[in-house]
Amino acid sequence: MITSRLPRTSTAWAPLLVPLAVLLTWDVGVTIAFKVGLVEFRGIEIQYTLYGTAIALFLGFMVNASYARWWEARTLWGSVVNHSRNLARQTTTLLDTTGPGARPEIVDQMVRAQIAYVQALRTSLREQPLPPEVDVYLDETAVTTVRAATNAPTAVLSHAGRLLAEAYRRGMVSDIARVQVESTLSVLTDAQGGLERIKKTPLPVQYRFLPSFFARAFCVVLPFAVYQDLQWWTPVGSGLVGMMFLLAVQVGRDLADPFLDRVHDVPMTAICRSIEIDLLEMIGAETPEAVAPVDEVLW
Amino acid sequence: MITSRLPRTSTAWAPLLVPLAVLLTWDVGVTIAFKVGLVEFRGIEIQYTLYGTAIALFLGFMVNASYARWWEARTLWGSVVNHSRNLARQTTTLLDTTGPGARPEIVDQMVRAQIAYVQALRTSLREQPLPPEVDVYLDETAVTTVRAATNAPTAVLSHAGRLLAEAYRRGMVSDIARVQVESTLSVLTDAQGGLERIKKTPLPVQYRFLPSFFARAFCVVLPFAVYQDLQWWTPVGSGLVGMMFLLAVQVGRDLADPFLDRVHDVPMTAICRSIEIDLLEMIGAETPEAVAPVDEVLW
Amino acid sequence: MITSRLPRTSTAWAPLLVPLAVLLTWDVGVTIAFKVGLVEFRGIEIQYTLYGTAIALFLGFMVNASYARWWEARTLWGSVVNHSRNLARQTTTLLDTTGPGARPEIVDQMVRAQIAYVQALRTSLREQPLPPEVDVYLDETAVTTVRAATNAPTAVLSHAGRLLAEAYRRGMVSDIARVQVESTLSVLTDAQGGLERIKKTPLPVQYRFLPSFFARAFCVVLPFAVYQDLQWWTPVGSGLVGMMFLLAVQVGRDLADPFLDRVHDVPMTAICRSIEIDLLEMIGAETPEAVAPVDEVLW
Amino acid sequence: MITSRLPRTSTAWAPLLVPLAVLLTWDVGVTIAFKVGLVEFRGIEIQYTLYGTAIALFLGFMVNASYARWWEARTLWGSVVNHSRNLARQTTTLLDTTGPGARPEIVDQMVRAQIAYVQALRTSLREQPLPPEVDVYLDETAVTTVRAATNAPTAVLSHAGRLLAEAYRRGMVSDIARVQVESTLSVLTDAQGGLERIKKTPLPVQYRFLPSFFARAFCVVLPFAVYQDLQWWTPVGSGLVGMMFLLAVQVGRDLADPFLDRVHDVPMTAICRSIEIDLLEMIGAETPEAVAPVDEVLW
Amino acid sequence: MITSRLPRTSTAWAPLLVPLAVLLTWDVGVTIAFKVGLVEFRGIEIQYTLYGTAIALFLGFMVNASYARWWEARTLWGSVVNHSRNLARQTTTLLDTTGPGARPEIVDQMVRAQIAYVQALRTSLREQPLPPEVDVYLDETAVTTVRAATNAPTAVLSHAGRLLAEAYRRGMVSDIARVQVESTLSVLTDAQGGLERIKKTPLPVQYRFLPSFFARAFCVVLPFAVYQDLQWWTPVGSGLVGMMFLLAVQVGRDLADPFLDRVHDVPMTAICRSIEIDLLEMIGAETPEAVAPVDEVLW
Repeated sequence: MITSRLPRTSTAWAPLLVPLAVLLTWDVGVTIAFKVGLVEFRGIEIQYTLYGTAIALFLGFMVNASYARWWEARTLWGSVVNHSRNLARQTTTLLDTTGPGARPEIVDQMVRAQIAYVQALRTSLREQPLPPEVDVYLDETAVTTVRAATNAPTAVLSHAGRLLAEAYRRGMVSDIARVQVESTLSVLTDAQGGLERIKKTPLPVQYRFLPSFFARAFCVVLPFAVYQDLQWWTPVGSGLVGMMFLLAVQVGRDLADPFLDRVHDVPMTAICRSIEIDLLEMIGAETPEAVAPVDEVLW
Repeated sequence: MITSRLPRTSTAWAPLLVPLAVLLTWDVGVTIAFKVGLVEFRGIEIQYTLYGTAIALFLGFMVNASYARWWEARTLWGSVVNHSRNLARQTTTLLDTTGPGARPEIVDQMVRAQIAYVQALRTSLREQPLPPEVDVYLDETAVTTVRAATNAPTAVLSHAGRLLAEAYRRGMVSDIARVQVESTLSVLTDAQGGLERIKKTPLPVQYRFLPSFFARAFCVVLPFAVYQDLQWWTPVGSGLVGMMFLLAVQVGRDLADPFLDRVHDVPMTAICRSIEIDLLEMIGAETPEAVAPVDEVLW
Repeated sequence: MITSRLPRTSTAWAPLLVPLAVLLTWDVGVTIAFKVGLVEFRGIEIQYTLYGTAIALFLGFMVNASYARWWEARTLWGSVVNHSRNLARQTTTLLDTTGPGARPEIVDQMVRAQIAYVQALRTSLREQPLPPEVDVYLDETAVTTVRAATNAPTAVLSHAGRLLAEAYRRGMVSDIARVQVESTLSVLTDAQGGLERIKKTPLPVQYRFLPSFFARAFCVVLPFAVYQDLQWWTPVGSGLVGMMFLLAVQVGRDLADPFLDRVHDVPMTAICRSIEIDLLEMIGAETPEAVAPVDEVLW
Repeated sequence: MITSRLPRTSTAWAPLLVPLAVLLTWDVGVTIAFKVGLVEFRGIEIQYTLYGTAIALFLGFMVNASYARWWEARTLWGSVVNHSRNLARQTTTLLDTTGPGARPEIVDQMVRAQIAYVQALRTSLREQPLPPEVDVYLDETAVTTVRAATNAPTAVLSHAGRLLAEAYRRGMVSDIARVQVESTLSVLTDAQGGLERIKKTPLPVQYRFLPSFFARAFCVVLPFAVYQDLQWWTPVGSGLVGMMFLLAVQVGRDLADPFLDRVHDVPMTAICRSIEIDLLEMIGAETPEAVAPVDEVLW
Repeated sequence: MITSRLPRTSTAWAPLLVPLAVLLTWDVGVTIAFKVGLVEFRGIEIQYTLYGTAIALFLGFMVNASYARWWEARTLWGSVVNHSRNLARQTTTLLDTTGPGARPEIVDQMVRAQIAYVQALRTSLREQPLPPEVDVYLDETAVTTVRAATNAPTAVLSHAGRLLAEAYRRGMVSDIARVQVESTLSVLTDAQGGLERIKKTPLPVQYRFLPSFFARAFCVVLPFAVYQDLQWWTPVGSGLVGMMFLLAVQVGRDLADPFLDRVHDVPMTAICRSIEIDLLEMIGAETPEAVAPVDEVLW
C-alpha cells in the first residue's frame, strides 16, 4: 500500500511506461502523417463520444468490481485482526488456569498459535514459503503437521482446536465457553475462506480483457478523429484522453488482485505484525517493532 | 472459469461468431448499398448518442445484475467451503470418541458425508446425475435414501443430522456442542438455498430480452447514421461500436447463470475437490489430486 | 415469473399496448403535420441529449431500486425456504420421541405447521383468502385461532412456538435445543417481516410518478426535435427511443411490486410447493407434484 | 408516506411552488428580454451538455444516498416490527407461569412494555412529547423512570430487562432462555441505534448544499443557452429541463430525512399501531383499529 | 460535522480558496490573452464532452468510495453506541449483586470502563493523547496498564474482560450469561477494528491522485475550448464547470478520512458524550451536559 500522497516509487509507474510511450508515439506519428499528407481523412467528429460512452461503461464495470474486491480483501483482513484479538481475550479470560488438572501453558500456546496462523495465512496468500514465525510460535510437533499440510493456515486452526479440546478435557473451560471460543475459530475460518476466494477467483476474463482491449482500440482511432479540430495539438488532446482511459484500466488491474506482493497490495506484513504485537502484549510477552513503510510503501 | 489472460478456448468465442459475422456483413452491405446509390439518406448525426445513452442504461442494469449474481454464487460456494471446514474441525474436536457408549467411526462418517454433500450439491446445480462420490463416501443405506430423495443434498444433510443425533444419544457430544454443530448445518442449508435461488431464478425476462434486442436494433441502424461521416470506413466505425454493445450483452449472459456447465461457470468441480482434499487430510485419510485447468479452463 | 426466453404471454405485453400505440400515432401524426405544413419548427437539435441524460438519471434511480426490491423479495423467500428446511431438520433430529412423557406426533405437527405457515404467508402477501393447506396441515383448534387472527402467518408461528413449549414441558427437548429451534422461528419472523415491508411500502411516490411523467413528456417532444434530421424516418427514430424509455419505466413497474399476482411475480406458489415437498419427504409423508409453468409463466 | 399513485396533497407540492414559479418567470423573462433586444448573446450551444453531466453526477450522489437512507430507515423499523413479535412470542412461550414463585403478570407486562417502547421510539424520532401509550402500557413507577430519562426508549428497554431479571429470579425462565430473550433486546437496541444514527446524522453538508446550488445556477444559465435554437419555445424547453433537475433535488431532500413528521415520512404511526395490534392479540387483549391513510397519506 | 444548512465556518471553505482563485485567474487570463491576440486557436468544440465523461467516471469512483467510507465510519460508531448500551443493560441485569461472594462494585466498574473505552477509542482515532476520562472512569491499576499499552482501547476491553472473569469467579454471573456479555465485547472489538481499518487504510493512491489531477488538467484546457463560443463570458462558463469538478474532488477528500479532527469529521466527541450520559444514567450516576455545536460544527 502506497502511503504517500503521490505514488513516487518507480514500481508504481513501471507498468504504465510502455503503454504511455506507445500512445504518445502513435499520436505524434498520426499527426505528422496527416501534416505531410500521408493520410487524408474527414474527422469522425461526434462519433467518439459514442465510443467514449461505451468504453466508460466497460471501465465502470471493471474498476468498480476491482475496488470492491480490494476493499473486501481489506475488510476480511480486518476481520482476521478483530477475531484474533477476540480469540486472545477469550482465551485469557475464559480459560481457568487454576484448577487441579489445568496446564496453564495452553493459554499462551493458543495465543501464539493465532500469531502463527495469521503469518501462515499471509504467506499462503502471497504464494511464499511458510514464514519463520510458524517455527517460533508453534511447538515442534505442531510445526511438523502444519508443514506437511496442503493448507497450512487451516492446519494451524485445527491445532488450535485440538488445544481447546485438551483444555476442555482438563476442565479448564466450561462447555459453553468452549463453544464460544470455537465460534471465534469458525469466524476466522470464514474470513480466511473469503480471502482465498478473492485470491483464487480472478475477475471474469471478460472484465480483464475487454476494457483493456477497447481502451487501446480507442487510443488507436482517436487521433484520426480529432486531427481536423486540433491540428498540431492532436497529440496533447488525444493523448490526454487516451491516458485517462489507459490509467483507468491500470487502476482496475492494480486493485483487482490485492495479494500479488506488489506495491498496491493489502499491507499484510504490517497487519500481521500489528496482530503479533497486540497478542503478545495481551499475554505479557515481549513485542517486536511495528512495520514501517519502505520508500513510502507499506507491505 | 477461464484462467488464462485471454479467452483462448473456442467455446468462449463460439456464441459470438454468428452475431459478429452478421454484424460485419450488414455493415459492409449497407456501405456498398450507399456507394452504389441503392440507399440515399441524410445521416442521423447526433441522435445516435441518445440511443447510445439509452442502451448504456439497459446494459448497465443487466451487466451489473449479472456480475452480482456470479459473485454471489462464488461467495456462497466460498461459504460452503468455509463451513465444510468448520464442520470437519468441530466434528473432530467437539466429539468425544473415548466414552463408554462411543462409536468412534461417527466422526469419520460425518466428515465423509460432508464430502458427499458438496459433490451432490455440485451435480444438482449442474443438473447432472448424482456423482460417484456419493457412493464412495456414504454407507449403503444412506446412499439408498439419498438416491430416492427429490433434493439429494438436503437428504445428505439430514443424514448428517441423524449421525449427530446418534452421537448425542451415545454421549459423545454435549448438548451445547451438538447445537453448535447443528448451527453449522443450518449455515450450510442457507448457502445451498442461496445457490438454488440463483439457479432457479433467472434474470428477469426484461433484463434478458431488452438489452439484447436494443443492442441489435442499434447495430442495424448505426451504419445508416455514420455513413455520411465515415464513407468507406463505415464498417470499421460502425462495427467497432456495435461489437462493444454486443459483447457487453454477451458478458451479461455469460455471468448471469453460473451453473450451466460452460466455460464461464463457477469452477465447482475444482472447489469440491479442494474441499475433499482438506477434509480427508483432517481425518488423516488419503487425498486425491487437485483439479487442474483443462485448456486453460478450470471446471 | 416468466420462464421462456421471450415474454410470450399476452399479459406481459398488455400494459405496453396502449402507450406504444399512442406513441406511434403521435409520432406519425407529428411527421404528417410537418409534411403538410401544419407545423413549422426549427429542430431542437442537441438539446434532447440533455433531456436524455436527465431522464436516464431518473430511470436509473427507479429501475435500480425496483430490481433491488425484486431481488430482496426473492432472497427473503429463499430465506423462508432455507429455514423451513432447518426447522424440519432440527425438529426431526433434536426432539426426542422416545422419552416417557413424549408425544411423538409433535414432530410431525411442527413440520406440518411449517407448511401451513409458508402457504398462509403466500396468500397473505397476495391478499388472497387463506389457502386450503391451512386446514389440511393444522389441527382444528389451531385452524380456528389462525383464521381469527389479524396476521395469519404470525399466528401459525405462535402455534409452532406453543408446540415447542409443550415438547419442552414433556421433556422431549433440552433447554438449549429448544432455544436453537426458537432461533429458527425468529429468523422466519424476520424474513416474513421483510416480505411484509416490501409489500406495504411501495416505491416512494416520486419514483413511481416522475420517471413515467418525464419519459412521456420526452416522447411528446421528441418528434419535433428530430424531424429536421429524419424527415419521413421520424416515426422510426423517435419511436425507437421513446419505446426504450417507456419500456424502462415498465420494467421498473413490473419489478417494484413482486407480490401482485402478476406474471412478473416472485413464483411463490412454486416455492411454497417445493417447501411442501421437501418437508413432507423429511417426515416420510406422501408428496404432491411440483408446480409446473403455465404458458411459460411460473406462479 | 403517500399511498396514492399521484401525490395529491398540497403539502407534497408546496415546497416546489416557489422554485418552479421563479424558474418559469425567469425563463419567460429572459425570452422576452431577447425578443425585445435587451440581451444579445450567441448561444452556448453544446456546453450545457457538459454542465448537465456534472450536475447529473452531483444529483446521482445525492439522490442515491437519500434513497439509501430512507430505505435503511424503513428496514430498521421493519427490524423493530420483527423483533417486537419475536419478543412477544418468546415471552409467551419461554416463560413458565406455573411455577411456585411465578408472578404470571410479568408476561403481559413485558409484552405491554414492548408496545410502550415502540411508541416512545416513534415520538422520540419525531421530537414530540412522550405519547399517551407510555402511560397506558407501563405501570406507574416505570412511567416515572421513563419520563425522567434522557433517552426514553432506552429506559423502557432497561425496564424490560429488569422484568426479565425478576422472572429469572422467580424461576420462571431458564438461564439460557433468559439469554435468548436478552439477545432480542440487544437486536432492538441495535435497530433503535440505527434509527437514531439516521436521525442525528444528516446528509453531509456538501450533499445538501451543492446539488441544489448547481441545479439552480444551471436554471439561471439555461435560457441564454437555448434561446438561439428555441426562440419563443425557450420557456418550455428550458423550463422542462430545469424542472427535472429541481425536482431531482427535491426528491433527494424528501427522502434524506425520513423522521420529520412530513408526508414523505416513514409511516411510523401506522407501523407502531400494527405492532400494538399484533402484540395485544398475542396476549389475548383487545386491539385498537389499524391506522388508515388521511388524504392518501399514511403517517 | 457541520450542522447548518450552509457551511458557514471559514475552515470549510479554506481548502477551496486557493484552487478557486487560481482557476478564476487562469480563466480570465486566457480570455484576455485571446482578446489581445496573444493566442489563436480553433476551439476544441465537442471534445470536452469526452473529457467530461472520463473525468465524471473518475470522480464517480472517488466520491462514491469516499461517501461509503464516511457512512461506514458513522455506522460503526453507531454500533459502538448500541453495544455500549447493550453492555450496560446486560451488566446491570445479568449480574447478581446479592450472592455471598459478590462484589457489587463490579457492575459500576464495568459500565464506567465502557465509558473510558469509547473515550479512549475517540482519541486513538484522532491520534490525540489519552483523554482525562480514562483517569476518571478507571481505577488506578487499570489506568497504568492502559497507559502502557500500544492499543489503549483494546487494553480497556481486556480490563473489562478481567472484571467479567472476576464476577464469574465470585458467582455473580452464570456461565451462559457471561458468554453473552463476552459476545458483546467481541462485537465492540469488531466495530473498533472496522474503525481502525478505515483510519489506517486510506483510499487507494490512484483514487486520491488521479481525479484531482485530471480535474485540474481539465480546468487548464477548458477556457481554450470554450472561448470561441463564449467570448467574454468564458471565465463564467469555464469557471462554473471547473468549480463543479474541483468541488467534487474536495467533497471526496472531505469524506474519505472521517477521523482527522476537521469540520467534516464524524462527530465523535458528541457521540462519546452521549454514550457517557446514557450509561451513567443507567447506573444512576450524575450525568454531564451533552456536547453542543460550536459555530455550527458538532465535533
